[in-house]
Amino acid sequence: MDVGSYVAFAGGVGGAKMVQGMSGVLRDEQLKVVVNTADDFEHLGLYICPDLDTIMYTLCNLHNVKTGWGLDNETWNFMQSLSNLGGTTWFSLGDHDLATHVERTNRLNLGDTLTEITADLASKLGTSICIIPMSNDPVRTVVHTKDGPIAFQDYFVRLACEPVINRICFEGIEKALFNPLATNELNSNSLKAVIICPSNPYVSINPILSLKSVRETLSRVKVPIIAVSPIIKGRAIKGPAAKMMNELGYEPSSSVVAKEYCDIIDGFVIDNTDIDVVDCIQEMGISVLVTNTIMNSIEDKKQLAQDVIEFAGDMMIKGV
Amino acid sequence: MDVGSYVAFAGGVGGAKMVQGMSGVLRDEQLKVVVNTADDFEHLGLYICPDLDTIMYTLCNLHNVKTGWGLDNETWNFMQSLSNLGGTTWFSLGDHDLATHVERTNRLNLGDTLTEITADLASKLGTSICIIPMSNDPVRTVVHTKDGPIAFQDYFVRLACEPVINRICFEGIEKALFNPLATNELNSNSLKAVIICPSNPYVSINPILSLKSVRETLSRVKVPIIAVSPIIKGRAIKGPAAKMMNELGYEPSSSVVAKEYCDIIDGFVIDNTDIDVVDCIQEMGISVLVTNTIMNSIEDKKQLAQDVIEFAGDMMIKGV
Repeated sequence: MDVGSYVAFAGGVGGAKMVQGMSGVLRDEQLKVVVNTADDFEHLGLYICPDLDTIMYTLCNLHNVKTGWGLDNETWNFMQSLSNLGGTTWFSLGDHDLATHVERTNRLNLGDTLTEITADLASKLGTSICIIPMSNDPVRTVVHTKDGPIAFQDYFVRLACEPVINRICFEGIEKALFNPLATNELNSNSLKAVIICPSNPYVSINPILSLKSVRETLSRVKVPIIAVSPIIKGRAIKGPAAKMMNELGYEPSSSVVAKEYCDIIDGFVIDNTDIDVVDCIQEMGISVLVTNTIMNSIEDKKQLAQDVIEFAGDMMIKGV
Repeated sequence: MDVGSYVAFAGGVGGAKMVQGMSGVLRDEQLKVVVNTADDFEHLGLYICPDLDTIMYTLCNLHNVKTGWGLDNETWNFMQSLSNLGGTTWFSLGDHDLATHVERTNRLNLGDTLTEITADLASKLGTSICIIPMSNDPVRTVVHTKDGPIAFQDYFVRLACEPVINRICFEGIEKALFNPLATNELNSNSLKAVIICPSNPYVSINPILSLKSVRETLSRVKVPIIAVSPIIKGRAIKGPAAKMMNELGYEPSSSVVAKEYCDIIDGFVIDNTDIDVVDCIQEMGISVLVTNTIMNSIEDKKQLAQDVIEFAGDMMIKGV
């Protein structure tokens, strides 16, 4: 039985699906998930970590499959009362979900790190999988538009990704330290592969890669680094990745994502329907796996995870 | 029709019952409620005002009659999840109630005053009665015990009033300013009476009276100042007033309350069952009204309010 460890870089929904699949084919202690925190924000005095929560709720099988965020069997009484009071309601906070934000905020204010808090919350919610915030320091994604900068959740939720963007910045990225726990996992002798999940390359994965020392650490990793494309037939399964590509001047396709990662990855996984871009990606010196990357059922997720893990194993054997 | 105004000094449950009665016999614009804020506290990062909320919810007829705090038809999903996460649960926060605390905390952090916020929340919840926090500045009741000081809500809720107290302090009282809105109401030409509600004299009313300028302002008021006893037959209807009296060295009785207020009040209202203390109170130079002060039904509350208002009117005519 495979006893090596796997580090996944993940954002929200796509990342959550991928790591859920991985959790179905690996033992809990084999999976280490490094999660984007650049879409974290403070709202109504609460410290909210959308990607961490999506990953955590999904790995605990508590997630709302329909929305892609929040908890299943949620209630909205707080939100209804907040609305009655004239409060800010563009960001939905369920009654159960609110406990996560209040507890996290309170513990941060008491001086605990986001890493400690995340580990405790995940454990209480029922998973022993190691969920690692990319940094304990604040990093904030800001999208720039012709009308000026917009904080990420404002853009993503309040404005429903409607503004046209021309640039994306990560405030605080220069000072933020990559989580030492993540560095340890990347340097571990038991590491078998690094998997970049099918998350938005610009706002979910790039913040992690932009933290100082991450690219350098990855360049020294002796196991395959594999990315799974979030783009299928020029479209994102969920979220604004394809729209962002257009606005940043690219024709949306898997090969644009591969290009984004080409100096880091050894392998790239694309959907069966995208077989026409294989040559283009291989020309970048990247091995390609063509398989089903659409994850609707838990079986889809596990199969993709299995495919990616085997792809990594094959690359290792071939000495890529 | 009486068009004058009435200022009530109130704490939590007893005060809420009294002002609910007053609201039933006065027009909204006639009633001004000055509320204790010394039992406010910060909990889980939220700024919570127990007395303000009890008064506000009661005047909006949204209060939970059984508990004496919080909202009717409340749900507890947040609390259940907070408990699952290992959070602090000794102070119960309902899902709907939480919106009040989150909205208030957020607006305080944005720089609004507690007075402005209270007015807006009360208006949104459906009352136009003027609810005035005693101060916009923080005052914190601390009870002293042989084992050291205890913050009020810790004592009142977490420890269920069990520790024996020997002293009560109001931290911040020297610097806190009496709400100018309250001063204006006390100086108003339309003022007909000041009513000290049947709230705990030590921890609900005394914080208000201890703010600088309050006793001086009251001494210049030309209308009757009347207190309603929260003690009936040596016992408090609700709360630790009688227990506190014992611990502070008094035999619990209405006359102890009258003594507490004797340099301020012109009239004192006691229950029919306490007729034996009339002489004792009159000897302090205080007029006494004996009536039913037990407020179970809305009719009880309105009748007591009517009795107190008439008592004040009679005293005015007699030139007391």
